[in-house]
Formats: sequence, structure tokens, C-alpha cells
Amino acid sequence: MPDCLLCAETGGALLWNSPLLRVIDACDPVYPGTTRVVLNRHVAEMTDLGEADQQSVMRATLCVERVMRDTLGPDKVNLAALGNMVAHLHWHVIPRWKDDPHFPQAIWAALPEATPGAPQAQRARRNATIAGVPRFHRALTDALERTMSGAAAG
Amino acid sequence: MPDCLLCAETGGALLWNSPLLRVIDACDPVYPGTTRVVLNRHVAEMTDLGEADQQSVMRATLCVERVMRDTLGPDKVNLAALGNMVAHLHWHVIPRWKDDPHFPQAIWAALPEATPGAPQAQRARRNATIAGVPRFHRALTDALERTMSGAAAG
Repeated sequence: MPDCLLCAETGGALLWNSPLLRVIDACDPVYPGTTRVVLNRHVAEMTDLGEADQQSVMRATLCVERVMRDTLGPDKVNLAALGNMVAHLHWHVIPRWKDDPHFPQAIWAALPEATPGAPQAQRARRNATIAGVPRFHRALTDALERTMSGAAAG
Repeated sequence: MPDCLLCAETGGALLWNSPLLRVIDACDPVYPGTTRVVLNRHVAEMTDLGEADQQSVMRATLCVERVMRDTLGPDKVNLAALGNMVAHLHWHVIPRWKDDPHFPQAIWAALPEATPGAPQAQRARRNATIAGVPRFHRALTDALERTMSGAAAG
């Protein structure tokens, strides 16, 4: 699709790829570990897909959630398929911590005023998360390979 | 779960119910038609569920999306399972229009400054959506009954 960012570009650091979908590190500086599952063809909505492809997309997305919880241990995982800016189906899988800058708001909310001491604590926790991301990515590519084999032919 | 709002209350106007999940009208004044799929037991994350229940939850959520598109005709549908405020699994299914107050931002973003004439146009379009909601709800309960029969035993 002309002018579609996710048709033209990978959209992040490629972690895993199949004919149906790719899994990318969103390289989010505030929310390290944030991962996206991006369809490898241009459709806008989940219901533009057949049921088998819907299930494969969700299987990949929930595989990301599972491994993210096991390796990074966030307090909450946020899942979202919005596509208002780029109407090319992609799932956000976002690790959230109770001390992160937006919690308990969505990461798309205006940044609340920081409480005293919060920025330092947030920086320390963010650095710990950043340190865990390589292990997350290794476990994730292994898990996607296992989980999606035979399920992601597209 | 004590103190969980979605354990204590329906959370909106009940449209459909099964042992596994309920579908409610969120009664959102800005985004009429917004629907939630709420698990009928207390779990925080999709990956706290077994695969059959995960598939049933997504089948219901995508049934809402399908009927919402067919009856309300939004420009985009937003799907999200956040749970930062109420960590009881629930999916938001939100109809979005290019002229709605937040587009193309997420509805959780700060409200952008309105452009001249936008509030009137938004009100007219919102009223048209409100007029279509009863038909959406009738079609949705029919579709859920068809789609979930035998799949939502929980």
C-alpha cells in the first residue's frame, strides 16, 4: 500500500519473521521491551483476516506476552491494536510497571507530573529492564519458533 | 477478588453473558458504541487463561468488532486489553471516526484543542452513532449467540 509506513519499513528491530507476520522490538526509549506483532500484508483490522490467520496473530501476540512476563516480570502487560495513525494491523505488547511514568494510565496519556524521587526510581527500574531485554529476545525467538511452527504459514 | 470493580459490578449495560465472559455496553458518552468483553472470573492477563478460553475471549471480541463495523461503520476499530486501573481481564472495542475528538490519537490521550467547527460536526456524527446503537446491540447479541454457541462453556 503506497504511503503505508509498515508496508515500506520493518518498523523496528526484527526479532522473528514468517510469511504471515513479523515480530519487532519497538525500540521504545521509555518502555524498553515493548514489542510489536506486525502483519506482513496490508490489512487494517483483525476482522479483515480469516479465522486461521486471526488465531496465528493472537498466538504470536500471546507468545510475546508469555515470554515477556517470564523474563522481564512486568506488573502488567498492555495489549492493543489501534492503528489510528498507521492503519496496518499491528499489536502493541507493552510491559508496564507500577512505578512507570504513566501508570496506571495508558502510555498514550499525557505524562502526569512526576512525584519527588520518581524519575530516579524510574531510571533505575528502566535500566534493569534494559539489562533484561537481550534475554527476553533470545527466549522470545526460541518460543516463537516453537509456538508458530506449522501455524504461521500465512 | 475483594476490591475488584469488575468482580463486584457488571461494569456497564449487560448485552450478553456466558459462564466464561460477559459483553457490556460501556455507556461511554464520548464514544457511544464502545463495548467491553469482560471475563467472568478474576484473572489479570490473557496468558493466565488456557488456550481454549483465550480463543473464546478473542472470538467474542472479534465478533463485537465485526458487528460494530457492519452496523456502525466506524473508520477504525481500536482493540485494547490494558487493565492498569482494574487488573481484571477486559477487552475494549472502541469505534473510532476520523473526526472524533482524539483521532488519530488513542482515546486515552489528552484531548487535542478543537479546530473551528469540529465540535458541531462531532456532535452530529456522535448523534448519528447513538441512533445506530440499538441496531448494533440487536445484531451483536444475535451474532454472539451464533458465534459462541458451544464455544463459551468456560
